[in-house]
Amino acid sequence: MSETLPVTDRTRLRRSHTRGHFDRETVNAILDAQPMCSVGYVIDGKPFVTPTLQWREGNHIYWHGSAASRALKNSRDMEVCLNVAILDGFVMARSGMHHSVNSRSVTLYGRAFKVEDDAEKHRKLGNFVNSLFSGRYDILRPDHAQDLKATMVLGMEIREASAKIRTGAPVDEEADYDLPIWAGVIPVHMQVGEPIPDPRNREGVELPDHVRDFTL
Amino acid sequence: MSETLPVTDRTRLRRSHTRGHFDRETVNAILDAQPMCSVGYVIDGKPFVTPTLQWREGNHIYWHGSAASRALKNSRDMEVCLNVAILDGFVMARSGMHHSVNSRSVTLYGRAFKVEDDAEKHRKLGNFVNSLFSGRYDILRPDHAQDLKATMVLGMEIREASAKIRTGAPVDEEADYDLPIWAGVIPVHMQVGEPIPDPRNREGVELPDHVRDFTL
Repeated sequence: MSETLPVTDRTRLRRSHTRGHFDRETVNAILDAQPMCSVGYVIDGKPFVTPTLQWREGNHIYWHGSAASRALKNSRDMEVCLNVAILDGFVMARSGMHHSVNSRSVTLYGRAFKVEDDAEKHRKLGNFVNSLFSGRYDILRPDHAQDLKATMVLGMEIREASAKIRTGAPVDEEADYDLPIWAGVIPVHMQVGEPIPDPRNREGVELPDHVRDFTL
Repeated sequence: MSETLPVTDRTRLRRSHTRGHFDRETVNAILDAQPMCSVGYVIDGKPFVTPTLQWREGNHIYWHGSAASRALKNSRDMEVCLNVAILDGFVMARSGMHHSVNSRSVTLYGRAFKVEDDAEKHRKLGNFVNSLFSGRYDILRPDHAQDLKATMVLGMEIREASAKIRTGAPVDEEADYDLPIWAGVIPVHMQVGEPIPDPRNREGVELPDHVRDFTL
């Protein structure tokens, strides 16, 4: 087996050499392609991983949850690690060793901060909804003050990032290409299905463009 | 916004009350549905998250990688957290607060152990390939001894597990159901595409059943 998520391209960003080593476009493209992420944090020296949704605004990434969430309370002002991984295919080689997956992955490291300002938090949550469904936040019932209060938004500067991408066919040892074994790739992708209207939708309410046109 | 991955059903396994609180079938079904996972571990007090593939054998879960992998070397004999999260849909409510996702997620906690015995490691890697592609490992070019040596397999007992599942329509505040806002669910799922044969496959090599019948 080759390394879990093989690296055919790796970019790494550190503050000190942003120009030389960092391809911000690659990192951003992966973050923007998949809202699901895994946030790693530490409590009493032990690791925790919580899946959540992330969204990006410029050079910052954000996620949110209940203000009472253990995950958020233990990430705020702490070192966190945030990973987005997109599985693109199963790579089938002529030996077990060279089986692999095609994938795109970004890992971010840094200190999470809490968005303290209420107006700013409100804007961020609106940006989150609108980043998935263009314009939707603006037609929703406005947030209750107590709901905003019960919600925590965390952010992190995209400063130290590691992107890994593997694409294409299996890479076998030269001698193995002679073997009569089928090799290749089984591609996979996230498929968006037909929207399912809430049975309690009011009569005459039409499917909005931001639902009809939704893609991932 | 409601909590990131809302809980409509939660099961939690601890060794001491396996019967009462634990639904092993639910946990296993989620683990078996998606090989991609995120492993959280700690180095020098800081959190790291690495995406990798997992497979289950009975009450144990396994993952693997290069014996030189930082992730594996820092997980072995250490506390780790392993999460599998499957996104099933975007839940669109009548307020931002009640937007959510339908998802299935399992988080496992425990101490990872290295599979030391070579024959056992060999069997585990074979089980991994065969768990994805029935019988494939047995038709591959056998592993070189040095490849096995360069590969580390880690395992963990499924002992402390937390499963979270959300399904179904949005849940809005009663008054909000009168609003003329489209609500519902946009389902998503992993779609398996058409296999792409390696251009270097030998002439006459046929697509095996374990590729044609592959599902996720």
